[in-house]
Amino acid sequence: MAEGRKVLAAALPADVEVETTEYDLGARFYHRTGETLPDSVLAELKTHDAILLGAVGDPSVPSGVLERGLLLKLRFAFDHYVNLRPGKLLPGVTGPLAGRPEIDFVVVREGTEGPYAGNGGTLRTGTAHEIATEVSVNTAFGIERVVRDAYRRAAARPRRKLTLVHKNNVLVHAGHLWTRTFEQVGREFPEVTTDYLHVDAATIFFVTQPERFDVIVTDNLFGDILTDLAAAVTGGIGLAASGNINPSGEFPSMFEPVHGSAPDIAGQGKADPTATVLSVAMLLEHLGFTAEAAKVEAAVAADLAERTGPRTTSQVGDALAARVSG
Amino acid sequence: MAEGRKVLAAALPADVEVETTEYDLGARFYHRTGETLPDSVLAELKTHDAILLGAVGDPSVPSGVLERGLLLKLRFAFDHYVNLRPGKLLPGVTGPLAGRPEIDFVVVREGTEGPYAGNGGTLRTGTAHEIATEVSVNTAFGIERVVRDAYRRAAARPRRKLTLVHKNNVLVHAGHLWTRTFEQVGREFPEVTTDYLHVDAATIFFVTQPERFDVIVTDNLFGDILTDLAAAVTGGIGLAASGNINPSGEFPSMFEPVHGSAPDIAGQGKADPTATVLSVAMLLEHLGFTAEAAKVEAAVAADLAERTGPRTTSQVGDALAARVSG
Ligand SMILES: CC(C)[C@H](C(=O)O)[C@@H](O)C(=O)O
Ligand SMILES: CC(C)[C@H](C(=O)O)[C@@H](O)C(=O)O
Repeated sequence: MAEGRKVLAAALPADVEVETTEYDLGARFYHRTGETLPDSVLAELKTHDAILLGAVGDPSVPSGVLERGLLLKLRFAFDHYVNLRPGKLLPGVTGPLAGRPEIDFVVVREGTEGPYAGNGGTLRTGTAHEIATEVSVNTAFGIERVVRDAYRRAAARPRRKLTLVHKNNVLVHAGHLWTRTFEQVGREFPEVTTDYLHVDAATIFFVTQPERFDVIVTDNLFGDILTDLAAAVTGGIGLAASGNINPSGEFPSMFEPVHGSAPDIAGQGKADPTATVLSVAMLLEHLGFTAEAAKVEAAVAADLAERTGPRTTSQVGDALAARVSG
Repeated sequence: MAEGRKVLAAALPADVEVETTEYDLGARFYHRTGETLPDSVLAELKTHDAILLGAVGDPSVPSGVLERGLLLKLRFAFDHYVNLRPGKLLPGVTGPLAGRPEIDFVVVREGTEGPYAGNGGTLRTGTAHEIATEVSVNTAFGIERVVRDAYRRAAARPRRKLTLVHKNNVLVHAGHLWTRTFEQVGREFPEVTTDYLHVDAATIFFVTQPERFDVIVTDNLFGDILTDLAAAVTGGIGLAASGNINPSGEFPSMFEPVHGSAPDIAGQGKADPTATVLSVAMLLEHLGFTAEAAKVEAAVAADLAERTGPRTTSQVGDALAARVSG
């Protein structure tokens, strides 16, 4: 986070001052207070223009507590229905698909419903007869707005291609609603070429032919899975940035690296801050600082292309900040 | 299918005769009769020792009809709770991970519940206020039996490692039931090393480090997604075989390639029958013809290692049958 803020400060024009408030949430705060996100903090956050979220989580906290009590709570409270995750293979990146031509897509993941709605429960809990359900809740309202957002993004890109990913041959109720909405909204965007893939088939194309994708729109859970895979094929989770967008602007949007908190290396100064820095670029873009966002992205691309030996977290941040201000 | 039967006949000992009944189901049958799986056929199938299922599906049939009316109907009617999908990188295979050391895992996908249960529905259907739900149904009974099966398989393999894949930080109800059952059953198998991964993280390891996996156990939907990805990293969907197993033997188990019916090349004699042939190997293994199964697998491995120009479907089948009998 410190490196992200360094680069943010370096990128902004001299006459723009950022006012930042730091909230120390996450595992430590939870252990100290038993709380994950006090109502007072939520109310204060609401008054900000944007949120930069550091990766949270620690094995000492039971699985799900911080995820649902902090991260998902923010996404739902601030109606972040567009979860934006670019997948771009930058030059200089190594990995299984290095050197592949033009991998440059963006996943528009629905962020406020689907299997993430928190619906479901258990019966005969803890017995040999237990039943546990998870209910994926999908609304025409929720799907239409994210699908329209994805069409707009596709229409604004050179290739103008939008792929819907779902599993409409098995999850027929939600699948039909997604498919029908996708077709209906598509009539407003005749210039956009469309495509449908089942989620299982999509994973194959992510590995064998990722350059076929331009914009992808999908539900909350499929988007979660596909964007980790996308990160794996475009340089690793250490480079994957994301934006949780509330397009209406009623609530602050939130930017965060896709990766976790890597508690095994916490405090050792060796975590790669690049995904956080790229999230800062998305934040800048969202707030209208388009040229500044491009500068940050260019700095990352140049840095990656010239990487040699290992550097500390702050060395990477310093190098990126220097490129951005230089 | 013809090639699969050729190889089956070639593999069996001289004194064993296969009695086969062919059922012409799928898209053509559906268009002719409006039915996908008549009760009478289901009753007849029940008396067989095993089923070899050809890939079904055609764009002329609405999405979901054959999937749910035939394939899933068989899996549910015959209680195929172990959906077994090996992921093995055979020598001679090209692709993004070719030449990687020792990719050899097997996914045990639950086959009879989860999001595939067919629960859910719609309200205010077709209106701007539509709500569509999909209910993932998970039972202690259903999870325990598939988890125990996976432990048994892991215990019988050299590395003795079992990984549970779920998303227990978000799908907490089902996730806790899976996790708790995984731990409880694990006490019966102290020799098996265990591991847990969120499904999103698992996709990353499938790409970057697939050799870390030995046996994986997961739910129906995560298994569907992960096994297509597994196919992509181990030589492509053209090689991916699967078994829908009813371990009690009360119902016939069913073997099928993971891939679809490729209607775009149907009847042209250029589909690769290898995944069907490898499914025949799994069928042989299941019926106790272990040496014969190994012969079929060895034939495929040798064939792959020596592949040169393109061959027709029946040339591949002939070559494999010749190797098996030779
Ligand atoms: C931490 C977890 C709740 C989260 C998610 O599932 O959305 C993460 O995997 C992500 O992709 O942002
Ligand atoms: C065709 C479809 C219903 C099926 C599934 O989802 O299980 C297929 O993708 C598979 O993996 O066997």
